[in-house]
Amino acid sequence: MQFFKVKTVEETFAQIEELVKAVKETEVIPLEEAFRRVLAEEIIATESIPSFPRSTVDGYAVKAKETFGSSETMPGFLNVAGSVQMGEAATAPLQSGEAIYVPTGGMIPPQSDSVIMIEHCEDLNGLLNTYKQVAPGENIIQIGEDVRVGEVLIENGTKLRPQELGAIAAIGKTHVTVFKQLTVGYLSSGDEIVPYTTEYLEIGQVRDVNALTITSLVQEWGAKAVYAGIVTDDYDEYQKRAKELFEQVDCLVLSGGSSVGAKDFTTQVIESLGEPGVFIHGVSIKPGKPTILSMANEKPVIGLPGHPASAMIIFSLFGEKIVQKLSGEASRNKLDRVQVRLMKNIHSSMGRTDYVRVKLLERDGEWWAEPIIGKSGLISTLVQSDAMVEIEAENEGARQGDLVPAILLR
Amino acid sequence: MQFFKVKTVEETFAQIEELVKAVKETEVIPLEEAFRRVLAEEIIATESIPSFPRSTVDGYAVKAKETFGSSETMPGFLNVAGSVQMGEAATAPLQSGEAIYVPTGGMIPPQSDSVIMIEHCEDLNGLLNTYKQVAPGENIIQIGEDVRVGEVLIENGTKLRPQELGAIAAIGKTHVTVFKQLTVGYLSSGDEIVPYTTEYLEIGQVRDVNALTITSLVQEWGAKAVYAGIVTDDYDEYQKRAKELFEQVDCLVLSGGSSVGAKDFTTQVIESLGEPGVFIHGVSIKPGKPTILSMANEKPVIGLPGHPASAMIIFSLFGEKIVQKLSGEASRNKLDRVQVRLMKNIHSSMGRTDYVRVKLLERDGEWWAEPIIGKSGLISTLVQSDAMVEIEAENEGARQGDLVPAILLR
Repeated sequence: MQFFKVKTVEETFAQIEELVKAVKETEVIPLEEAFRRVLAEEIIATESIPSFPRSTVDGYAVKAKETFGSSETMPGFLNVAGSVQMGEAATAPLQSGEAIYVPTGGMIPPQSDSVIMIEHCEDLNGLLNTYKQVAPGENIIQIGEDVRVGEVLIENGTKLRPQELGAIAAIGKTHVTVFKQLTVGYLSSGDEIVPYTTEYLEIGQVRDVNALTITSLVQEWGAKAVYAGIVTDDYDEYQKRAKELFEQVDCLVLSGGSSVGAKDFTTQVIESLGEPGVFIHGVSIKPGKPTILSMANEKPVIGLPGHPASAMIIFSLFGEKIVQKLSGEASRNKLDRVQVRLMKNIHSSMGRTDYVRVKLLERDGEWWAEPIIGKSGLISTLVQSDAMVEIEAENEGARQGDLVPAILLR
Repeated sequence: MQFFKVKTVEETFAQIEELVKAVKETEVIPLEEAFRRVLAEEIIATESIPSFPRSTVDGYAVKAKETFGSSETMPGFLNVAGSVQMGEAATAPLQSGEAIYVPTGGMIPPQSDSVIMIEHCEDLNGLLNTYKQVAPGENIIQIGEDVRVGEVLIENGTKLRPQELGAIAAIGKTHVTVFKQLTVGYLSSGDEIVPYTTEYLEIGQVRDVNALTITSLVQEWGAKAVYAGIVTDDYDEYQKRAKELFEQVDCLVLSGGSSVGAKDFTTQVIESLGEPGVFIHGVSIKPGKPTILSMANEKPVIGLPGHPASAMIIFSLFGEKIVQKLSGEASRNKLDRVQVRLMKNIHSSMGRTDYVRVKLLERDGEWWAEPIIGKSGLISTLVQSDAMVEIEAENEGARQGDLVPAILLR
């Protein structure tokens, strides 16, 4: 086996960025099923929005110049020549000296160029008194002012949020091409691991906690999780079960048992799945140093550290990035760290990135992070955590009062 | 009808906090279906974790005092008396002068009190050379050190994250009592509104964009959305359809058309659904002033402003809070605003809270917000937005370089 140098967190992210590519398969689905899916096409506006000039207020469509000089003390006068109904075309052009009532969102009649709000005029038996002048274009949205036909409305690789779905609906597009939904497989290994549904444990056994933490993170990121159960520390069986799962999924996650045999097996199994193979074997990170990342036939494979808490933290960090790249989502400028102030000093080793579980507390409009005390393998410390504070490798820790980046654990 | 004074954003949140109560119905579901559901019970640890003393490293279980004085130059010597297998009880007690191999996570044999890491000793044909002394308890997790039997592991009202599911699995609990999943109904009204699947629009018509923005926000918050279509501006029909939907759901959302008639209808329909009725009729907010909030027979009813963009912003703010309260989720200290720096001055009116759509840009490790130009009713400005910056009512705006709170639009 190749000799691996432990990589920094930054190098690990850079390698993922370089090696993991979007899946090739796409599908066409109805818009109402497209929430949080990733666009595999560019959305070009096939219509203008609005498709007719609309009023932004309740008021009267007028020719702006016929209101010039109007004031509270010296109102102008226009004849009310009718009203526009919602949902109907205003076809009769506005004549000189006339005003036509238009509700918010209604169409502006031809030859009118502005709308005077009802608050600024008064209809006295068909004679409109205007108490304010309006400028041409005032209180109107022009054709195409929201979206112009032919423009790029949404870029390829966008993960669809509510507003993107709304904008696509607005132009009358009912189906979209998206990257296929990913499936991420998880297989647990270790002689000591038993199903989490086991009622009574024998001494020495532990329940498969990752089955829930890993699969729910996968769900959170919009992918489907396939949980393939537990395999004991037998290389042939482990390799066979991992291979079977690998063939079914877009990304495979393994968590080795903690025995020396099991650790070696996980690496060997990962190496057996395809080329080019392991690219990360150990990260200078706490917790989670024994992390393994591999690419096998263009599918990412992740070997998690043994402790459930470390496994969850590592999967949150690197798994999310891998799933994002694989999903086709374009890397964008994302505020994925918030700045918080430390309530206590944190010690760390130079050259290693530490993720410290913290509780967040608000004090005078600022957010403070209180480190949670406890060994890194403990699941209870994660239950108490609101976030993880990142102590970068170039620092030997951070001091009370320092602003540090934090990843929220929602 | 009662006379309503326009309320501030703060007063509106305070009213929601006071009036909206958790649904009463709960259900018992399997743990693997409980992700993002809200606990309706307190989880008490029925077992200790770990349930046996475990090693946190690969090494040899020893009596600490028998390693005292060991060093690289003056190693101590112990007889290797066997090894502990993963998943099995270590029953043979450790005798004086002995060491027993234990893998990470393996059980510590009786009479041993610490583990020396394999890096700090060497097994030379059954004679263990110890190059370092260990302290009692070193490299061991004691019974109950992660979770102690009888302690409150997770509080009632917790929205279950991956780590909570993991912790519940760890104690062998396979089912949990949760508040029922909420259903939120949405009914659109207005003569100009047509289904978003309409291929060609007549002049004056607009597609029902809210059908997608509102229902996907509901999904995002973990509730089920029921979309009941569009009703024209006819009071009796509107009231009947709203009432039918209201009976089926836990929370009703209406969006009135923009005609004067439709506006009045929405308020009347909401008032007709039950007591005590409307508690918010207008909020001093931009966009979204004509927001209506009501409680009818303990169900919240929300009347959204007409513009799709305003409707989405208002629903994001107040709808999320209402759904959260109704879901049984305990109000907790949550970092739901991040601080960003403004790239440009923003003007605002004293006494009104403004939500300004912004793009976020990173510069030297700090996040800057660039306001997006465009009228407030436009959906395309929301598509371009990464966040909304909040300009509080007590300010007349904010200046370039100011730190302001922002709500991320994910």
